[in-house]
Amino acid sequence: MTSLFPVNKEKETSTEIEKGGSIMSRPQTPEPTLNGQEDTPVGSPDDVADGIQHSHRMLSFSDALLSIIATVMILPVTHTEISPEQEFDKSVQRLLATRIAVYLMTFLIVTVAWAAHTRLFQVVGKIDDTLALLNLACMMTITFLPFTFSLMVTFPEVPLGIFLFCMCVIAIGVVQALIVLYAFHFPHLLSPQIERSAHRRLYRQHILGIIMRGPALCLAAAGFSLFFYPASYLLMATVIFLPYVSKAAGWCRAHLMGPREPPAHSMEVFTFDLHEPLSKERVEAFSDGVYAIVATLLILDICEDNVPDAKDVKEKFQGSLVAALGESGPHFLAYFGSFATVGLLWFAHHSLFLHIRRATQPMGLLNTLSLAFVGGLPLAYQQTSAFAQQPRDELESVRVSCAIIFLASIFQFAIWTTALLREGDTLQPSARFGGREHAFMFAKLALYPCASLLAFACTCVLSSFSTAIFHAMQIAVPFTFLLLRLLVRLALASLRALRGLVGPVIAQPAPGAADEAQSPLLPAPC
Amino acid sequence: MTSLFPVNKEKETSTEIEKGGSIMSRPQTPEPTLNGQEDTPVGSPDDVADGIQHSHRMLSFSDALLSIIATVMILPVTHTEISPEQEFDKSVQRLLATRIAVYLMTFLIVTVAWAAHTRLFQVVGKIDDTLALLNLACMMTITFLPFTFSLMVTFPEVPLGIFLFCMCVIAIGVVQALIVLYAFHFPHLLSPQIERSAHRRLYRQHILGIIMRGPALCLAAAGFSLFFYPASYLLMATVIFLPYVSKAAGWCRAHLMGPREPPAHSMEVFTFDLHEPLSKERVEAFSDGVYAIVATLLILDICEDNVPDAKDVKEKFQGSLVAALGESGPHFLAYFGSFATVGLLWFAHHSLFLHIRRATQPMGLLNTLSLAFVGGLPLAYQQTSAFAQQPRDELESVRVSCAIIFLASIFQFAIWTTALLREGDTLQPSARFGGREHAFMFAKLALYPCASLLAFACTCVLSSFSTAIFHAMQIAVPFTFLLLRLLVRLALASLRALRGLVGPVIAQPAPGAADEAQSPLLPAPC
Repeated sequence: MTSLFPVNKEKETSTEIEKGGSIMSRPQTPEPTLNGQEDTPVGSPDDVADGIQHSHRMLSFSDALLSIIATVMILPVTHTEISPEQEFDKSVQRLLATRIAVYLMTFLIVTVAWAAHTRLFQVVGKIDDTLALLNLACMMTITFLPFTFSLMVTFPEVPLGIFLFCMCVIAIGVVQALIVLYAFHFPHLLSPQIERSAHRRLYRQHILGIIMRGPALCLAAAGFSLFFYPASYLLMATVIFLPYVSKAAGWCRAHLMGPREPPAHSMEVFTFDLHEPLSKERVEAFSDGVYAIVATLLILDICEDNVPDAKDVKEKFQGSLVAALGESGPHFLAYFGSFATVGLLWFAHHSLFLHIRRATQPMGLLNTLSLAFVGGLPLAYQQTSAFAQQPRDELESVRVSCAIIFLASIFQFAIWTTALLREGDTLQPSARFGGREHAFMFAKLALYPCASLLAFACTCVLSSFSTAIFHAMQIAVPFTFLLLRLLVRLALASLRALRGLVGPVIAQPAPGAADEAQSPLLPAPC
Repeated sequence: MTSLFPVNKEKETSTEIEKGGSIMSRPQTPEPTLNGQEDTPVGSPDDVADGIQHSHRMLSFSDALLSIIATVMILPVTHTEISPEQEFDKSVQRLLATRIAVYLMTFLIVTVAWAAHTRLFQVVGKIDDTLALLNLACMMTITFLPFTFSLMVTFPEVPLGIFLFCMCVIAIGVVQALIVLYAFHFPHLLSPQIERSAHRRLYRQHILGIIMRGPALCLAAAGFSLFFYPASYLLMATVIFLPYVSKAAGWCRAHLMGPREPPAHSMEVFTFDLHEPLSKERVEAFSDGVYAIVATLLILDICEDNVPDAKDVKEKFQGSLVAALGESGPHFLAYFGSFATVGLLWFAHHSLFLHIRRATQPMGLLNTLSLAFVGGLPLAYQQTSAFAQQPRDELESVRVSCAIIFLASIFQFAIWTTALLREGDTLQPSARFGGREHAFMFAKLALYPCASLLAFACTCVLSSFSTAIFHAMQIAVPFTFLLLRLLVRLALASLRALRGLVGPVIAQPAPGAADEAQSPLLPAPC
């Protein structure tokens, strides 16, 4: 791997000589160097002049769009109004279940579309104006998918919803096929491995086959929808779950038959298959988008609904705005609670991916699952605040919140354990077993699962204090994060004191460990 | 500038030797090399192990959060309901004006906060866990600002809104001061220029002074709000507009007294002042966030409001779902129109910033103004679709839409003309006067202003066809973008044919120009 590095530098230097000072302004690709793209020639000013551009910014924009679309369908769920006098009856339950189903289906299908988009632009290394416009058309079609789901769920027996869905998938497939054909027609747009390959024509057939598989199934489903719609639902489910099933199957197979050969091999022979690791950079960008939109979803409702009406303030609260605001106090609490939780889960995710070198398939799947539950957090918090006026249901909603937090964080923890299974490939040395950051990383990721489990257990024992317990957890966790390094050090020290010797997990001798523990709090000696 | 490059490479090589193969996994900083950070040491695995991280991902996350907060307040504006029978009367007008004011104020203050955040993290080069958590706290406080504006605008005579606003600004200031103090306490977190500087203590005073200026004004405003609130509004306006005024003043001064010394100087002596160019990377990230959220805002309403009710379909449309959907056809048109316009404006922005080497202060200001109008686009499109049922107001709403598109795109064009004023500093060679991409860039940026002006003029002449004209424009513009290269070539060729010689704008001889025109459509000869 390191042997490729001087080659890159030579390239840069030669471009520099050609172009003089203008090398400073080249767009840098922050693509991590492990994704089979490590010898992409750095975009020289020449390229820019020809209208050929590095795709970095377009990909971030697409990631942002897709993460918003994936998450925004949680809003109808949170907007399901349950007035205090109304019972939480069947019709409300069905409405809520419908909307949650739409949210989950949207999330899944958008994640599949995102993964396909990631693969596609691992093949197409550079873009020009036509590709940028085609990509916009692709995005526009994807954003229409949530609506078809809403139709499907509201009218399960009218085949129009599924017909529209299939049309969308076919349109997306056609646009993606156009992108592939265009890029193979102008091979300088392709990723360098494929551009240089002798089997370029084979690659094209292979990629087109993968891209058109979903649309072909959907074409059949659209046909069925006209006379026998249950079959189309079955086909649709196949389209959505096929990548997940094949991922899971591949992972199981790899585990039963032993790990595949080391990844250094896949860097020379570039293969476009579903078992290549995803670009870590894009996993991060997509996750960032989801976290950012989820963290801010509730402020919208706050600004729209919780500004009291001028007339109300005069009549009900004798002109006291403070009293009127006190009325919606639980909503503010819900907002800050939700923001803090999402923010801290982002923080754990950020710390985790800092120590990850490459994101394998199972890790990507676990990340998707974690994100789907993160998207449910605003719902949980809103329910907690809505039921604060109804003590009868308080306990349930607190427990649901704890469960959602637990699931979102336990899947993060699962990413970490999955990474540890193949730590040589996936983790930085410092985060591996015996590494300097291992115990700390463990504590960071275990904090939320433990806290939510603890809160859940407490509500079982002290059911009348459930809200108080939940709020105590909300307040305690951020401070624990701040003091985590200190706490981990104390825990390790007390472990050592108890056992009278250095524990087997900490491979380094005690003096070294003491050094290491101090380093984050003291300036580097340089 | 180029002389610094080998230094960088030497550093990288030495790190490589120290660490062996693990150099491949270092996080790359996509910070453009012109922002006074060009010799930031590349984050070695050592840093990661100590919990010190490059701030890149945290900054993208902050950019995403801030751009969502800046734009999300347009939603209450679009939710202002005007029922068909209701007159567009005074009370609706006042409500709409109120909400637009909240949107604009939020946009401005969030942009100011974003710029301050950018400056702050140009000083603080790396982060550790504590800084990441402090940054989250800062973000949480910023997201609360829109609510204080809503309060202020709804109850202009109750000082509570302004009091809360001031408290928020003070809280933000305190958190930012904590970040600065923490970073100066552990100087390895600072940007290398400051870390190495002998005047570090002076820098700290200077930066703290700048950061605490706004909060100090707000403290005074909070005091005034308790007994004489008009004074606090005045102080608040100062806080919001101070950076803009000082920017404009600085720009005028620079123009009257001639350009400042070349920027090569500022790379050795790092100064933290308001006249440093912003990080181009972060301007792009913030703009991407705004474009992405604006493009998808309307899908939310579509999914929530335009799924017809099962009972309605049975009673009003005799069970025909297609007829029921036809009812909300204008909304779909509005969505796709809005998405396409925002997407194409993003495309123009993307093309423009590809040719920009550094973003100066006036360019940043113009970009903010352009983005503020882009945020208004969903409103314009929704009004167009809402009024489609009321032919009386159709003309007005089409004109408002044209005006918003014109303003959003003309400010983009202004970024480009401003960049041309100092093209040596700000533009890539190919985009300068006489460069190969100059004419094409001009056409790309002039397309939307021209189209919207043309549509506006047409509605004046043919007022009864205003909607048709608007829709024709919506359909024509994307195709024009696709064919733009061809059209520009045709235009240049006809210009040449008309004048019988190469025009003065095209500096190159005709054969070269012909070559250049072909290059984007043909593969590079490599």
